[in-house]
Amino acid sequence: MSAIDDLATELAKLPGIGRKTALRLTYHLLKQPPEQSKRLASVLSGLADRVRRCSVCFNLTESDPCSICADPRRDRALICVVEEASDIGAIERAGEYRGVYHVLGGRLSPLDGVTPNDLTIQQLADRVGSGAVREVILATNPSLEGEATALYVQRQLGANGLVVSRIARGIPVGGDLEYADGVTIAQALSARRAM
Amino acid sequence: MSAIDDLATELAKLPGIGRKTALRLTYHLLKQPPEQSKRLASVLSGLADRVRRCSVCFNLTESDPCSICADPRRDRALICVVEEASDIGAIERAGEYRGVYHVLGGRLSPLDGVTPNDLTIQQLADRVGSGAVREVILATNPSLEGEATALYVQRQLGANGLVVSRIARGIPVGGDLEYADGVTIAQALSARRAM
Repeated sequence: MSAIDDLATELAKLPGIGRKTALRLTYHLLKQPPEQSKRLASVLSGLADRVRRCSVCFNLTESDPCSICADPRRDRALICVVEEASDIGAIERAGEYRGVYHVLGGRLSPLDGVTPNDLTIQQLADRVGSGAVREVILATNPSLEGEATALYVQRQLGANGLVVSRIARGIPVGGDLEYADGVTIAQALSARRAM
Repeated sequence: MSAIDDLATELAKLPGIGRKTALRLTYHLLKQPPEQSKRLASVLSGLADRVRRCSVCFNLTESDPCSICADPRRDRALICVVEEASDIGAIERAGEYRGVYHVLGGRLSPLDGVTPNDLTIQQLADRVGSGAVREVILATNPSLEGEATALYVQRQLGANGLVVSRIARGIPVGGDLEYADGVTIAQALSARRAM
């Protein structure tokens, strides 16, 4: 049954999908009308052809510049720096942010061989240097590498009137103090605000 | 970003894959070389064209009859009846069974509108009636519907010297009595064997 095995093998290469799940998905698709597999195949094969990087912010996009960079209502003086293009979706869904973005393409991780040259830090410095940028918000993840990356980027951007800020860390909304780790609680306490 | 949304929408139609996982998989594929999405697309689009039902046992196959029905070393007098083609894979991996199979295509479930006519029960009766079949093993799942289906098939096959058996129910190997449900324990006790 090599068509079944072939598909299961390809599906099992995806993150979080093991051999058993891959087989289950394959058998599921075989029970559906063939159009469903065909449609999935066609969007998959179009993906790499249609999607590229925005030349301004390195977001994944089908048009260059991307829809956010091209939107005249967005505040170009405010740049939110994220690790991955997928982080933009998370922030956009929150619906609060009206500035533009800059995608670093990862985070500094010397152990994995990711150095400043692998990220778009120089391009960010160029953007900041060339335009009337008021503030850069560093929204890398609050992990060890994310913090190190934020610190490095902050140093690269230098001073000259630019505000460089970091997203707040604390107890997530709907979260539970009892289950929060000590570092998060310490950060939430030290970043407390008067009510 | 419609190519990304399109793929996430299609992936989210698969069982066990929600919107967030679908987006994560999409972004993962965008980070891989384009060949990976292309290869996945090509095996997907070939799936429905290459795979059909075996005319003997209704297994999913690329050749008709399927490799199991065509194998001269398999015992054709012994038929194992399963609900789905995917169950064959599970039994084959156990490596013990040397007979052939019959795929019912589901289980009786009047509430879901699945009646005997929706399953390949008549075709099984024809197989048993036409050939020198010694034993039929009913390997439908040990669920309510699976048991009802086994009972119905057993009655349809009638007597005339045919042995109709049911797979054993009991504590799974590596399982824990403490966590087994009462029905399973009761079955394991009543089906006990002398050592």
